[in-house]
Amino acid sequence: MIKMFYAPHTCSLASHIALEDAGAEYSTVRIDFAANDQRKPEYLAINPKGRVPALVTDNGILTETPAILAFIAHSFPRARLAPLDEPFAFAEVQAFNSYLCSTLHVAHSHRMRGHRWADDPAAIAAMQRKVPESVGSCYELIEDKMLRGPWVMGTTYTICDPYLFTLAQWLEQDGVNPSRLPKVMDHRGRMSQRPEVRKAIADELD
Amino acid sequence: MIKMFYAPHTCSLASHIALEDAGAEYSTVRIDFAANDQRKPEYLAINPKGRVPALVTDNGILTETPAILAFIAHSFPRARLAPLDEPFAFAEVQAFNSYLCSTLHVAHSHRMRGHRWADDPAAIAAMQRKVPESVGSCYELIEDKMLRGPWVMGTTYTICDPYLFTLAQWLEQDGVNPSRLPKVMDHRGRMSQRPEVRKAIADELD
Repeated sequence: MIKMFYAPHTCSLASHIALEDAGAEYSTVRIDFAANDQRKPEYLAINPKGRVPALVTDNGILTETPAILAFIAHSFPRARLAPLDEPFAFAEVQAFNSYLCSTLHVAHSHRMRGHRWADDPAAIAAMQRKVPESVGSCYELIEDKMLRGPWVMGTTYTICDPYLFTLAQWLEQDGVNPSRLPKVMDHRGRMSQRPEVRKAIADELD
Repeated sequence: MIKMFYAPHTCSLASHIALEDAGAEYSTVRIDFAANDQRKPEYLAINPKGRVPALVTDNGILTETPAILAFIAHSFPRARLAPLDEPFAFAEVQAFNSYLCSTLHVAHSHRMRGHRWADDPAAIAAMQRKVPESVGSCYELIEDKMLRGPWVMGTTYTICDPYLFTLAQWLEQDGVNPSRLPKVMDHRGRMSQRPEVRKAIADELD
């Protein structure tokens, strides 16, 4: 059975929602970032990166949200969470999720995790100041060019949707003005009403 | 026919090598970063992100290296560039490439592209100073935990190999000490001898 290591208020929510969407049987283990659980030897033995999510499967351990989401889609094909038999459409899904992972999430991380890329407190503060602009420009691109509506890939719900929803929960804290992003906000609102999303969030905050 | 937009000395080399590995018919278009071609309207119409690579296919345009590499593997299955019928093994390939994209390449980008995340020149200089450490720790993780050898995924060459090779070309410039990384350096050396790699590099520098 699948076991997912997660932390509340992190990107692991995307994989948690996808497990609900897939109708998977799974259990979860909470990692307490406040207690620095993610840097303890027990957890580094599971994920040497010291990050969440980590998915323990019958075949081994997986990390990286885009890979975990694709694995869930492949493992539960009846849930139709990705266009598995259409290489181009599947690659479009991967491209969207890759952008969230490597550009949007990275821009966001400069608000709270600037220490990854500089030691000087003044530099870390300078990074924080730019987050509204750098994260905002990602959302403008998503709004104007990427989010087809009503779901990310158009009429069909995919593994792009829980990932965008998860990151979009942080945009006000990142200083981004939501009034410029009607499609993103509409997407976030509709996602938040889905039973699978409500269950995943309730489980994490329990 | 596939057409790839690339720039020399960028991560687009990974997709270029994979096209050679796949035996694909394709053409290339060089984007001149020195002339700021990537921000010109003609190119933004192809890739509104203003980055390379962009792959023009019969079905539409793809961006993001992990997605392009997976698309090439799916489109040319006889080249066996990924374990397409094994969801867990395929996800491991995606996880490795996602790590390169969102963590290693991002750490590297703080050397030359710090302006993406801060405006203050002192902050940008502080980011540059940390690159040897932040990039170096990525390579240590790859060396110690991820690169199975002789290829990234073990005995079978996959789309992870051209991507690691491409980024590993920059490690000395990033201030990383190669003597700590015998497996990474052995991989880079063997990759550089492959005819497909030599052809892709020669084409880009022609």
